[in-house]
Amino acid sequence: MSLIKDLMNAIQVLPGVGPKTAQRLTFFLLQKDPAGGKHLAETMLQAIDQVGECRQCRTLTEHDLCKICNNPDREYSQICVVESPADIIQLEAATDFKGKYFVLHGKLSPIDGMGPEELKLHLLVDMLAKPECHEMIIATGSTLEGETTAQYLSHLAEKGGIKASRLAHGVPLGGDLEYIDNSTLAHAFASRTHL
Amino acid sequence: MSLIKDLMNAIQVLPGVGPKTAQRLTFFLLQKDPAGGKHLAETMLQAIDQVGECRQCRTLTEHDLCKICNNPDREYSQICVVESPADIIQLEAATDFKGKYFVLHGKLSPIDGMGPEELKLHLLVDMLAKPECHEMIIATGSTLEGETTAQYLSHLAEKGGIKASRLAHGVPLGGDLEYIDNSTLAHAFASRTHL
Repeated sequence: MSLIKDLMNAIQVLPGVGPKTAQRLTFFLLQKDPAGGKHLAETMLQAIDQVGECRQCRTLTEHDLCKICNNPDREYSQICVVESPADIIQLEAATDFKGKYFVLHGKLSPIDGMGPEELKLHLLVDMLAKPECHEMIIATGSTLEGETTAQYLSHLAEKGGIKASRLAHGVPLGGDLEYIDNSTLAHAFASRTHL
Repeated sequence: MSLIKDLMNAIQVLPGVGPKTAQRLTFFLLQKDPAGGKHLAETMLQAIDQVGECRQCRTLTEHDLCKICNNPDREYSQICVVESPADIIQLEAATDFKGKYFVLHGKLSPIDGMGPEELKLHLLVDMLAKPECHEMIIATGSTLEGETTAQYLSHLAEKGGIKASRLAHGVPLGGDLEYIDNSTLAHAFASRTHL
């Protein structure tokens, strides 16, 4: 069963897949849905081979410029900076944002060797230099590194004479106060808005 | 992002993978481990293409005869009948069984169109016909269909003049009576062994 064992081992590259799940997935692919498995493997090879970073905004795309950068209806007036391409999908689904994005592929973290060069911030500076650009919306996560990155980005915006904004923190909609962590609650309390 | 979306869709053939996990796995493969993903896709294609059923016992193998059927140290005196190739892995890990296996790839279930022909029981009859064969160990599951299949198999063994046995049912080792379902407990009580 050596090819089968090879597949069980190879499939464990997927996050959260241990030996037991690998066995189940392997037999599923070989017995239940070989056609679907073949399609998956072919699509995977094609995507891994052809998908790279957008020349302008660094999101993942199989083209030179991504769909959003290539869309003349999306304006350069607002640039939303996110940590990963998945964040763009989330924001596109939740908001009616009509500007452009910039993907950091990480956050500033000197200890992990992630500096401004690694995040290719010169590409962001190029986007900020467009005459239409007047706001940078910083949508990095609210971890320590995410906040540090946001700080750095807001200095960058300031240098470029551009307004910087940050996603609001607070109580999630539908959230019960009882289940919200203390720091979020403290932040929401301090940043209360007047009615 | 069309190739990326293709991959997110294709990866949902895997059992238990919905849209959210598909997105996570897709970005993982493209960003974090493209080399592992490429190896996985290539192994998957090779395995789906080359793996088929063992000519004798129906387990999955890339060869004409599987490793166990091909091993002269494994005797034909005992044939253990299981529902799926995964069961062989479990039994090989748990027991020191030295006989051969036969894989049904399912169980008798007229309502799903699974009859003796679909389970290719003639191949099992061929194995039972070997002069050394004297015991059929029935290791089908203890579902309704599993029990029906076990019944049918024991008639088959009887016709061939071969002893049939069935895996014991009862309280799992380390099992607390409090957490055992009623039917298992009733069975274990009725089949109690004398000390």
